[in-house]
Amino acid sequence: MNDTFLKACKGEEVSHTPVWIMRQAGRYLPEYRAIRGKADFLTMCKTPELAAEVTIQPVDRLNVDAAIMFSDILIPCEAMGQNLSFEENRGPMLDPVRDKETVDKLFVPDPEDTMGFVMDTIRLLRKELAGRVPLIGFAGAPFTTATYMIEGGTSKNFLNTKMMIYQNPALYKSFMDKVTATITEYLKAQIAAGAQAVQIFDTWGGIFCPADFRKHALSYVQKIIKDLKEWMKGRGESVPVIYFVGSTAGLIEEIKTSGADVYGIDWKIDLDAAIKRLGGDVVVQGNLDPLSLFLPKEKTEERVKDVLNRGSSARGHIFNLGHGVVPQTPPENVIALVEMVHRLSAR
Amino acid sequence: MNDTFLKACKGEEVSHTPVWIMRQAGRYLPEYRAIRGKADFLTMCKTPELAAEVTIQPVDRLNVDAAIMFSDILIPCEAMGQNLSFEENRGPMLDPVRDKETVDKLFVPDPEDTMGFVMDTIRLLRKELAGRVPLIGFAGAPFTTATYMIEGGTSKNFLNTKMMIYQNPALYKSFMDKVTATITEYLKAQIAAGAQAVQIFDTWGGIFCPADFRKHALSYVQKIIKDLKEWMKGRGESVPVIYFVGSTAGLIEEIKTSGADVYGIDWKIDLDAAIKRLGGDVVVQGNLDPLSLFLPKEKTEERVKDVLNRGSSARGHIFNLGHGVVPQTPPENVIALVEMVHRLSAR
Repeated sequence: MNDTFLKACKGEEVSHTPVWIMRQAGRYLPEYRAIRGKADFLTMCKTPELAAEVTIQPVDRLNVDAAIMFSDILIPCEAMGQNLSFEENRGPMLDPVRDKETVDKLFVPDPEDTMGFVMDTIRLLRKELAGRVPLIGFAGAPFTTATYMIEGGTSKNFLNTKMMIYQNPALYKSFMDKVTATITEYLKAQIAAGAQAVQIFDTWGGIFCPADFRKHALSYVQKIIKDLKEWMKGRGESVPVIYFVGSTAGLIEEIKTSGADVYGIDWKIDLDAAIKRLGGDVVVQGNLDPLSLFLPKEKTEERVKDVLNRGSSARGHIFNLGHGVVPQTPPENVIALVEMVHRLSAR
Repeated sequence: MNDTFLKACKGEEVSHTPVWIMRQAGRYLPEYRAIRGKADFLTMCKTPELAAEVTIQPVDRLNVDAAIMFSDILIPCEAMGQNLSFEENRGPMLDPVRDKETVDKLFVPDPEDTMGFVMDTIRLLRKELAGRVPLIGFAGAPFTTATYMIEGGTSKNFLNTKMMIYQNPALYKSFMDKVTATITEYLKAQIAAGAQAVQIFDTWGGIFCPADFRKHALSYVQKIIKDLKEWMKGRGESVPVIYFVGSTAGLIEEIKTSGADVYGIDWKIDLDAAIKRLGGDVVVQGNLDPLSLFLPKEKTEERVKDVLNRGSSARGHIFNLGHGVVPQTPPENVIALVEMVHRLSAR
């Protein structure tokens, strides 16, 4: 039983710095592409056997210290009643939510009824992993989820999202209350099904100025984490919550107030600078530039040393990339990365 | 003669905080779209009468304290021998530069010979503006320019650029030396033609971790600014240099060493936090979220007050957006913004 990751999340002593890789179950792995060649993306998400298989692939191949369930942050949008599809090379497509009528039609679903396949995946994974490594569940943060729901997919400058926030704040709030309730119940269901840590992805949180981030993104995350903590307390559980925000550098002081156990840091800030601004006595996750995996190995190793060194100023450090691994990455470089982290951080 | 902008660049006393807007000559203005309907984008850039006309439009409409010549940061790429085109709704298209053979074919052009239309535009504008407001020239920073040249256009994660940097640093350096020399000569030619300030746009500088930014982007900007300052000294001139980096928050301490007179700050960090990290005794430009222009006017006014207040901790402050104004922005909101800055900052 490798519990290094969970220990690090709690800031406890560990024999080496644990490492996992955002998007470790993904297209850079040939064994992933083999499965993906037989089923489309949503089918993979909705078929527990397939989702579990690709979740375990990187555990086998990379020797990482945690598994993260294979799924997509937009699964709850469909469960709320929004139409969702994925088109090849175009990313997600949703029917945009931009007016009261559409917001009113959305509902807060029962997660087991509408997203039971995710919880089934978690239950299956806990059995198949059998304690090898802990299993991480996840959800998008309400704001990041909302951007996709409002824009109808990815966006360049999030104009429609900010227009709703700026011109119809009451509508945005009622919409976000539904999204927040959905994600709260979804994360509770994941934990109840066996997720041993959860990560909340706020990939687009960094598009705001700090005051807007606090009001229109962070406040909903704070609510989720507070609810989760109270609910877990009632169950005698304490599953760590990781909060990852893209473009973290301007928002460190805000993120500090999220209530999370672990702060995910992107690569655009030195990890020690982030730790210092977080107050020092914290647990951080990160933060190698994903494209560093295209460096010659000796150069990658220098960077791994540097990140480990900077991370050592925190109470706890989980090694990760600062964002997801890109599909073009040579798998052998990811394998080498994990080996480097283990070797260079061995106490 | 309104020289408030130039005084603020030098940190001198001003009667109000000067304001101009990144991309103020642009598609949000109906009079711009009228010209654009008659000529394609590159033709506009290359026809001094048209470029001068759209440069002056926002001076007339908005009452801004500076004009910025209408052009594009990719003009020097074509002058270096790279093929450049703009396709409707697709942005710029260039033949990618990714190997030694292609780099070797590029040359450092004489700016008057190859980009004379820009200098003609500047000469024409100085005549037509007749001292109403100062004229700003500009260029892309070498790194930001290089990303377009390597990727062949815009990019999501700049994989090809980072692959060249990480896997063939010698090639990247020889390429960047050519780009840097080209931009240095280009900015000198703009100043010689009459530009009264120059802005160096490093829109994509923020995709790096701080160490990479220093080595692969900032060092070339430092060289340009040093060369320009020496050259200006020899001519008895001191044209202010503004350095704008997108996603500034993680790189403030680096930007401080650029040698620039004015630091452009994006909206993802509080302006007073940026000023503090810059050392206080500095001149800054920024930093309202461009999408704040979609707020009701009384809310925009609150934000303008806030930015002015935070900016007052610097030696000098030029009001601007944190990035370019977006095409969908109602022109009356931009007009109102300029009025607010003037009214609220009047000493």
